[in-house]
Amino acid sequence: MINKINILDKRFELATGAGSDAIHKDPQYSYAVAQLGDESGLTGNGLAFTLGEGNDLVCKAASFYADKIKGNDIEELMADFGQTFKTLSNEQQFRWLGPHKGVVHLGLAAVTNACYDLWAKKRGVPLWKLLIDLTPEQIVNTLDLSYLEDVLTKAEAIELLSAQVDSKKSREGILTTGYAGYDTSVGWFNYDDEKVRENCKKAIDNGFTAMKLKVGSADPQRDIRRANIVREVAGETSKVMLDANQQWTLPQAISICNELKNMNPYWVEEPTHPDDVLAHQTLAKTIAPIKLALGEHVPNRIIFKNYLQTGCVGFAQVDAVRVGGVSEFITISLMAKKYGVPVVPHVGDMGQLHQHLVLFNHIAMGHKALFLEHIPHLKAHFVNPIKIENGVYVTPQEAGSSCDLK
Amino acid sequence: MINKINILDKRFELATGAGSDAIHKDPQYSYAVAQLGDESGLTGNGLAFTLGEGNDLVCKAASFYADKIKGNDIEELMADFGQTFKTLSNEQQFRWLGPHKGVVHLGLAAVTNACYDLWAKKRGVPLWKLLIDLTPEQIVNTLDLSYLEDVLTKAEAIELLSAQVDSKKSREGILTTGYAGYDTSVGWFNYDDEKVRENCKKAIDNGFTAMKLKVGSADPQRDIRRANIVREVAGETSKVMLDANQQWTLPQAISICNELKNMNPYWVEEPTHPDDVLAHQTLAKTIAPIKLALGEHVPNRIIFKNYLQTGCVGFAQVDAVRVGGVSEFITISLMAKKYGVPVVPHVGDMGQLHQHLVLFNHIAMGHKALFLEHIPHLKAHFVNPIKIENGVYVTPQEAGSSCDLK
Repeated sequence: MINKINILDKRFELATGAGSDAIHKDPQYSYAVAQLGDESGLTGNGLAFTLGEGNDLVCKAASFYADKIKGNDIEELMADFGQTFKTLSNEQQFRWLGPHKGVVHLGLAAVTNACYDLWAKKRGVPLWKLLIDLTPEQIVNTLDLSYLEDVLTKAEAIELLSAQVDSKKSREGILTTGYAGYDTSVGWFNYDDEKVRENCKKAIDNGFTAMKLKVGSADPQRDIRRANIVREVAGETSKVMLDANQQWTLPQAISICNELKNMNPYWVEEPTHPDDVLAHQTLAKTIAPIKLALGEHVPNRIIFKNYLQTGCVGFAQVDAVRVGGVSEFITISLMAKKYGVPVVPHVGDMGQLHQHLVLFNHIAMGHKALFLEHIPHLKAHFVNPIKIENGVYVTPQEAGSSCDLK
Repeated sequence: MINKINILDKRFELATGAGSDAIHKDPQYSYAVAQLGDESGLTGNGLAFTLGEGNDLVCKAASFYADKIKGNDIEELMADFGQTFKTLSNEQQFRWLGPHKGVVHLGLAAVTNACYDLWAKKRGVPLWKLLIDLTPEQIVNTLDLSYLEDVLTKAEAIELLSAQVDSKKSREGILTTGYAGYDTSVGWFNYDDEKVRENCKKAIDNGFTAMKLKVGSADPQRDIRRANIVREVAGETSKVMLDANQQWTLPQAISICNELKNMNPYWVEEPTHPDDVLAHQTLAKTIAPIKLALGEHVPNRIIFKNYLQTGCVGFAQVDAVRVGGVSEFITISLMAKKYGVPVVPHVGDMGQLHQHLVLFNHIAMGHKALFLEHIPHLKAHFVNPIKIENGVYVTPQEAGSSCDLK
């Protein structure tokens, strides 16, 4: 029975320039941490990610939700977690503050993730193992599919998973080879050209074959120059992704993306405002074959549904520490699977949690194993930090979701 | 110079059943109040509305933004408020918690509204008077039009307002006749059939010719029965609006709206999830000529833009205590004007602030004067409560935006 609740406000300093992008010049990577303990002595740790200011607001929201699940047995709770998620996320007074977005939804993410962590720890297995061993019905029982009735009913969700059961074993090789990573840290926004060039070389030396550059500068020529530097160092066979962090208007995005076609970006990420579904639709049509990646700031399954319905999503970057936690991450991954869109999470968790989730998406849902973002800045603060060897995530073996902070 | 900042967490008890809808069974009407004072001794009061729980989070967010404008002269601030709004709403660490939605955006609304209130008080005029006397350029300088470049440039916004300048005088008659109200309190969700019937009679006796019923029951037959009661008592010439408060899935909404066609609703409000632009688009096409009203939960100009672009909005219910305050309310009203969509605000402020804004929309922007929602539950708590006579709002004459609480 969950009887100990603790909410922590953890903020970390970054090295100069690290983490910077076109909007966030000076972020402070932070976690609202929900800790749920029961009589076993085990503690589930769940994260929501913020950039510093206001992390305390997310903590207060997490505390509100955590109190509501006190007294529950974790196995009983998770057997029907979809209903719990629905009830919590629609709690009638708090709902006004979203609904299903912003501070309150981040708070819910922390609590949801703590539940999954405790669940895996109680079973003594890594989260990926717990998830791939669930039946399709058991998985779908952890999901809230409300407001998705027009595209994904419960029966369809079960069917999508059931269709993959027989071939699961054939995809388990990834547990041994490891899931590929891509390097986000070659080109933070504030880095100068020389540092970008050096970092690209280092990334290649470290085995990465995919890397990302921050663009979205007030001067488009800076973006184009830097993009060409990365392409030059990375070579033609590496994948180079460009991330504009919402800095372009639609007309600007169309113009700059046309200029960037020459360097053949693997994707263009967050070209404009994350709420502007129709602008992304127009842009995707206009700049094809360049593909769009988005999702870092998309708060819930309903907006992801709209994005997927318009056909503009090249890569779905759902983040389980932005949407309502693991549960909603799986819901969105199922929708993406239905629409044939790969899931390449944004990793507000620094990959700690998502290394489990991409293994599940690949093995149990049949998603293609592309690669997972790698950001090393908080490694020192985790009890079991992710391990990258030769550009590949080494499959975690500890019980839980790898989200315990020191 | 703004040198006194005070943030108040005000929560009010309601009579049993009042304020209830299909989602919010037991709301506690609440305001996060930003108070900004300067050397004149005047205090600007700005509201953001919540349903109780979490009002303290909005207060903390408001406090963050209020601190950033300390030291500014109000006239100088408002001469270029669009830039201030843009800067505040994109403050780099806090932005992660939205962007432009949820708790942080509600906090910004309170501060923005306090600025407009102080501005009008300093000039010694009601807010409607201040706004209609501004030039088109002065109005547009208070707006942040970023991310709207594809539908509303600054030049277009000025042109939209300039085109109305010569005919302004012809619309000022409304200041004498008053702006019509409509009664939201005939049919709160928890009221039984008999109380709905009685309230409809009372509304007619009080001069209202438009009234709203809460639907979205688990039993669609209850909705249909109650809708027919209201139509029967109100007669064929009154307008009857139905409000589902997001309770329907898209397939349910299509089915129930088809059954409701017989009683000829003036609009169907919030049929499904407020983030689901494409579901509203499908629904509007399917149930025409029934029109949709929406906006109570739409947090910003960008999502309103998408809604307007799809052509599904019959009535835009933007609320200046939900979006980022008066500034964003005007921005959205301008877009609605461009798309030919009437603005009928949701009144989280109980009409105190919106009675000024609808006068401005009509006189300076040329919006049709339809009617303004009337909810009387907090009347006793305002220093200058709205006055309704024979179903019509009496034009407020006190300086400011009528948002001072006792």
